[in-house]
Amino acid sequence: MKRERERINIDKIEALKELELFKELKEEELKNIEKFFVVKKFKKGEYIFYEGDKEPGIYFVIDGIVKLIKETNEGKTVILRLATKGESFGWLVMKDNRPPVNTYTAQALIDTTVLYISNQDFLKLLLMYPALAVKITCELTKNILEAYDRLKSLAVEKVEGRIATLILELVDKIGKKEGDHVVINAPITRQDIAEMAGTTVETAIRVISRWKKEGILDTERGKIEIFDIDYLQDLIS
Amino acid sequence: MKRERERINIDKIEALKELELFKELKEEELKNIEKFFVVKKFKKGEYIFYEGDKEPGIYFVIDGIVKLIKETNEGKTVILRLATKGESFGWLVMKDNRPPVNTYTAQALIDTTVLYISNQDFLKLLLMYPALAVKITCELTKNILEAYDRLKSLAVEKVEGRIATLILELVDKIGKKEGDHVVINAPITRQDIAEMAGTTVETAIRVISRWKKEGILDTERGKIEIFDIDYLQDLIS
Repeated sequence: MKRERERINIDKIEALKELELFKELKEEELKNIEKFFVVKKFKKGEYIFYEGDKEPGIYFVIDGIVKLIKETNEGKTVILRLATKGESFGWLVMKDNRPPVNTYTAQALIDTTVLYISNQDFLKLLLMYPALAVKITCELTKNILEAYDRLKSLAVEKVEGRIATLILELVDKIGKKEGDHVVINAPITRQDIAEMAGTTVETAIRVISRWKKEGILDTERGKIEIFDIDYLQDLIS
Repeated sequence: MKRERERINIDKIEALKELELFKELKEEELKNIEKFFVVKKFKKGEYIFYEGDKEPGIYFVIDGIVKLIKETNEGKTVILRLATKGESFGWLVMKDNRPPVNTYTAQALIDTTVLYISNQDFLKLLLMYPALAVKITCELTKNILEAYDRLKSLAVEKVEGRIATLILELVDKIGKKEGDHVVINAPITRQDIAEMAGTTVETAIRVISRWKKEGILDTERGKIEIFDIDYLQDLIS
């Protein structure tokens, strides 16, 4: 049993080392803080937390992709963001500083491993290492700016522009260059694309099919290959 | 001259005291940090910074309302958020942690006074007072959740729902109860409403006019009066 626990501890430290936020902490400091974190694994499709849940905390993606979504009363889904390896999601509150009632739901898009830290422990951690607080402030700012880009895209782009914005966001986050094209290795469905671009599945299928015919991109078995990034960039206003 | 400067100093400390972020600092500490802040005044319509500007920093609204907007290549405008009294806007960067190239433009919607602090000084401040960093982390989280609410609204709501969401957001932020109705005291035009709800001015006019006829709300000389909040709430899915 002791052996088993040790193994998990070492894994957590290795995982923390991979995260931008903790890059500057020394081995000794990482050993000090790893007790605050819990490794959680989720299968494709499993929910990590639900909109309306009351237990705040922060999650760091060690491996996998997480969909952050909101659902409407009529059961429509909106994908707010895909959190990928190295990114964080979740939310924090201070006493007397509660966030809006509704937050969002987090669901594993593929098999995913996260490091979880509770609200209380994370606030402790920030006070112990002020430099972390400064870094997380910059990270949250990036999340805000990303949300603003999506807001602009949803507000003014035509559907082709919205889908192009989304694919370029994925290229940016998890795209891998392979020869003359870029590959997004993730089982992202047309349904997912529709939910992120604020359109219907039918429209998403129509747009993607046309791009396939025109050689802009190709989709197969859990990946999207993009051959003409410039074409997609030109669609965005 | 000395007298004048003292007066401005005292003003800054009073202004800082009004901000949630600095509520727990002692008089002595406020005197210590007020040198980092600059009071800036903007007339209605004046720009505070532009999308693409490279000087990061944080602005606190002391008085007034600021529109945070993005413009498209075709000159369309999207309002991302209205920052009201007590709220902050702007952005921070760390070395090697640059945000996406594009940020946004900030414009005074009415005569506005802000306290400005540069990126560098704000990072210093956070390291001096770690508790501030924790608080700003929660504040930024609130901004993210607010942006996600807008994303959902833009992605799935019909235009009536989007305009209702927006008016309720304004009620929440700057609404004042007057007898049996709520008043938003701000010169928000139908153009502004259209830009925030992702629709055309014509549509915004049509929706607002119908609501006026039905007695849901009334608009006149720089204010919006809402008589039937429940009706607007029911429009949101």
